[in-house]
Amino acid sequence: MQRNIRLRLEYDGTDFKGWQVQPDQRTVQGTLETCLTSLLGHPIRAIGAGRTDAGVHALGQVANFSTFNPLPLKRIGAALNSTLPPDVAVLDVDEVPPTFHARRSARRRTYLYRIVYRRRAIGRGQAWYLRGRLNIDTMRSAATRTLGYHDFTSFCVASSEKENRSCRVFLCMLACLKDGVHVEISADRFLRSMVRGIVGTLVQVGRGRRAPDAMDTILQARDRQYAGPNAPPHGLFLKEVTYEEPEE
Amino acid sequence: MQRNIRLRLEYDGTDFKGWQVQPDQRTVQGTLETCLTSLLGHPIRAIGAGRTDAGVHALGQVANFSTFNPLPLKRIGAALNSTLPPDVAVLDVDEVPPTFHARRSARRRTYLYRIVYRRRAIGRGQAWYLRGRLNIDTMRSAATRTLGYHDFTSFCVASSEKENRSCRVFLCMLACLKDGVHVEISADRFLRSMVRGIVGTLVQVGRGRRAPDAMDTILQARDRQYAGPNAPPHGLFLKEVTYEEPEE
Repeated sequence: MQRNIRLRLEYDGTDFKGWQVQPDQRTVQGTLETCLTSLLGHPIRAIGAGRTDAGVHALGQVANFSTFNPLPLKRIGAALNSTLPPDVAVLDVDEVPPTFHARRSARRRTYLYRIVYRRRAIGRGQAWYLRGRLNIDTMRSAATRTLGYHDFTSFCVASSEKENRSCRVFLCMLACLKDGVHVEISADRFLRSMVRGIVGTLVQVGRGRRAPDAMDTILQARDRQYAGPNAPPHGLFLKEVTYEEPEE
Repeated sequence: MQRNIRLRLEYDGTDFKGWQVQPDQRTVQGTLETCLTSLLGHPIRAIGAGRTDAGVHALGQVANFSTFNPLPLKRIGAALNSTLPPDVAVLDVDEVPPTFHARRSARRRTYLYRIVYRRRAIGRGQAWYLRGRLNIDTMRSAATRTLGYHDFTSFCVASSEKENRSCRVFLCMLACLKDGVHVEISADRFLRSMVRGIVGTLVQVGRGRRAPDAMDTILQARDRQYAGPNAPPHGLFLKEVTYEEPEE
């Protein structure tokens, strides 16, 4: 019987060229598929909930794959965790209905962006180090303007092939920490490099280079040149992917 | 006028052969001295509060050095943070009386050891991953037996040259976290690999392989063979060094 297996994954994106398989590049999907293929004895294609870019981390990426192999779930998890390289870890394994698709069934994705004010040695590859404090109030005012249903073309890299560039942002929240700022953004979908473009623009606002209402102008322009530069990938984490739970 | 400058440092020990200068090895002291010598224009010898082993991290190592260079403290800190490699960061710089000696003036050193139960990708180089939960109650009972003034020869590598192997342990505390255990140990001084030997022994107790009162027998034996194996270096952090503050 064909089984549909779901994995929840953590990875350190530092040494990966992103999630998606590319020829002659070390990618998370490629690494995972190699391990699964060797474990289950037939070619495996893994579907990821979100295609994280090179250098972007995940605390809770979700992937699914099909197999006829009856290996128990616990053994799949244990075998993956002993064969995957140290920068990828399996957090959970479960079996889902055949209709489940990690990308298409996802209702909500949540990203976390970490900014630190202090140069760090430990965890330096997992946060963006910025000199000088940011104005959290103006950043919050700008962040609020991204909420709701908008065309996010202005925050999307030009090469993105998606025709529909409208996303529904459920949450864009700033947490002010002692040594930095965390930005958390949830949406039904994200365009390529969208979070990094939003964070880069919020930082311009927090530095007083742009007013909070610039966010409205940028969204209306539908042109990447209006937004700020992308924040670097190493501060970004795919934190969580949410699915509609099937009714019991 | 000769100045005595104190630094507080954070470092990721992964790619260092420990604190102390060794020929042809990348060490924290060597890296720091090279930067300071080039910044201040004369050879600098840095004194560290604790000689962390290869792979051991620091959240608050303290070092001092002498110089005649009148460069303001702020500039020293900024210049170091822009020339030191990314795995060392300067947290604080201040000027101290000529009698201050980072090692000899220290009254208390605090180490943190991090154990995790879950395989992690992010932060994997900063914790010891153990399968299976530990019995925190028996570990606490064993930890308490290290408190006070004891000869710690049984937790000291044979090559240690120190004649006096007595240390006063002020605190040996276990914090039970959702996904692991933190061990925090404070003492007036530590012998080489002492914290790793204590943690390795506590883990044997937490796994039920030894009774908590084995700790008494081990201490009395004054023989390294009685204690458990050393916990690996990558879970260990020199957290803090405390000095008697001069009266105002």
